Amino acid sequence: MNIDRIRAAHARISGTVRRTQLLNSPFLDDIVGKRVFVKPECLQITGSFKFRGASAAVSGLSEDQRKRGVIAFSSGNHAQGVALAARQHGAQATIVMPSDAPAVKIANTREYGAEVVLYERGSEDRDKIGAELAQARGLTLIKPFDEPEVIAGQGTCGLEIAEQIGDVDDAAMLVCCGGGGFLSGIALALEAEKPGFTCHPVEPEGFDDVARSLISGKRETNAQLSGNICDAIISPSPGEITFPILQRLCGAGLTVSEEEALKAMRIAFEHLRVVAEPGGAVALAAALFRTADIPQDTIVATISGGNVDAPMFKRALETT
Amino acid sequence: MNIDRIRAAHARISGTVRRTQLLNSPFLDDIVGKRVFVKPECLQITGSFKFRGASAAVSGLSEDQRKRGVIAFSSGNHAQGVALAARQHGAQATIVMPSDAPAVKIANTREYGAEVVLYERGSEDRDKIGAELAQARGLTLIKPFDEPEVIAGQGTCGLEIAEQIGDVDDAAMLVCCGGGGFLSGIALALEAEKPGFTCHPVEPEGFDDVARSLISGKRETNAQLSGNICDAIISPSPGEITFPILQRLCGAGLTVSEEEALKAMRIAFEHLRVVAEPGGAVALAAALFRTADIPQDTIVATISGGNVDAPMFKRALETT
Repeated sequence: MNIDRIRAAHARISGTVRRTQLLNSPFLDDIVGKRVFVKPECLQITGSFKFRGASAAVSGLSEDQRKRGVIAFSSGNHAQGVALAARQHGAQATIVMPSDAPAVKIANTREYGAEVVLYERGSEDRDKIGAELAQARGLTLIKPFDEPEVIAGQGTCGLEIAEQIGDVDDAAMLVCCGGGGFLSGIALALEAEKPGFTCHPVEPEGFDDVARSLISGKRETNAQLSGNICDAIISPSPGEITFPILQRLCGAGLTVSEEEALKAMRIAFEHLRVVAEPGGAVALAAALFRTADIPQDTIVATISGGNVDAPMFKRALETT
Repeated sequence: MNIDRIRAAHARISGTVRRTQLLNSPFLDDIVGKRVFVKPECLQITGSFKFRGASAAVSGLSEDQRKRGVIAFSSGNHAQGVALAARQHGAQATIVMPSDAPAVKIANTREYGAEVVLYERGSEDRDKIGAELAQARGLTLIKPFDEPEVIAGQGTCGLEIAEQIGDVDDAAMLVCCGGGGFLSGIALALEAEKPGFTCHPVEPEGFDDVARSLISGKRETNAQLSGNICDAIISPSPGEITFPILQRLCGAGLTVSEEEALKAMRIAFEHLRVVAEPGGAVALAAALFRTADIPQDTIVATISGGNVDAPMFKRALETT
């Protein structure tokens, strides 16, 4: 995995992926006491950065692979990204989703043209269902993060940040982190384009496998995988491919509470006028509330996604 | 007022005004049964297109005028636009605001560096207070819409739309309309760059002075000026300068209900992940619910602003 692969992905997908604008606001600067920039991937097509990785992966397939189709496991943003990227490249997508996934996410994934195969989370084996389908139909699996082309696609976001931020050469880059695909792509892009930047993973409190892994030097796991409003970015542990990249390139991990994620959603609503989902808001939350000890005067934070339902958004609006 | 003035404004302000992205979503296309594009000026700096006109007007002042400062009357988006544009050009802004304006808008206007002069809506004469201040301090008045440089600034939004939409040559352009500054600027820009487009003003039901004026051929007035959630775009009548432009270049006006504006806010939340205010959402509402009789297959709608408080946004989220 290297910068050349990110640049190649950038060349392939720059016509189909939205170049989201780098936002800022004097109100955010005042809250933090530093210069703050926000990369709002909630405005990305399909509502999250996942469309970048999916587009890079599908566009990197051979003609034959595309003809046979692709498969992905996801209950959320990766599902929608793969579904639309596949349709745009003339490939049929099969998405294996739990039957209790939010109805709107299932409907959206179908709307983007995918065949959705539902399974019962309690009684059926997702991987077995997927493997049988892939085998029978000759489908190519698009993994959510531990896959070089997916990391390359996410890295295009880092190339954009480096271009958009102009002559700022010293900044702390905070990235919402699950399995580490988004962060490792951005970190590789910034290593090449903005070597003075320091990247930090941001995770929900109690689900800080990446932060702990960076301390211990080995891939730690989360004790549980649900029970937090930021569940969209909770993975069991950093990936086999992503972790060595994070180890080499990242500073210490930051964590935020559910309450801080909700407050960041409200502040993004008020001052940037964009819609962030809880997991997508953790890096902005860290920028707002956890950067007192960070030496840099400039903070760049991602908003990784904006697929959130109305009741959760109302909760965010009620924070003070 | 002509296209050269818009191009000149564009050249002056393109470094300071955000070039907002043209958004689209297959979900909007499905609702409408046409291709839909949205120009989200809620993502503009200060949260509305008003920053364009204010930047054009302030940057067009003489050095001497800037030194003496500017004045504006506004309880909302124009106030914030003028305040920040003035600060960026080293001019002191004085904004005359009613004392019952939302506290957050008063605070924001001060945050952008303006001196806010409050008056009692019931007992004090706003124009007299403003005239005395302007006279005493030698301030230049920045009008909200009936002012060539302001119209030129708003027209830069039309130039961007023409560039961003590529080879689409035939479309209906729907624009949120109060006094007609935004619409007349966009209509002039599109007359030059996309002569096949037809512009339509969109207003709240019961406050359709522009639609009625286009029918009668003279400047009609609204019976009342408040009592609608879209009050940010309600003006007494089209402007002296804007109306002849609208007469020459625009098709029939459309109107939408409060309920439709709220639904459009919810749909922008769900499918574009941007925050629209009620008045800012009327053109999107018309695109979604009132375009069955429009012959064009492509609709472009503005979202003119996103400065909305949490209780109103919750109302929008509760629509079905």
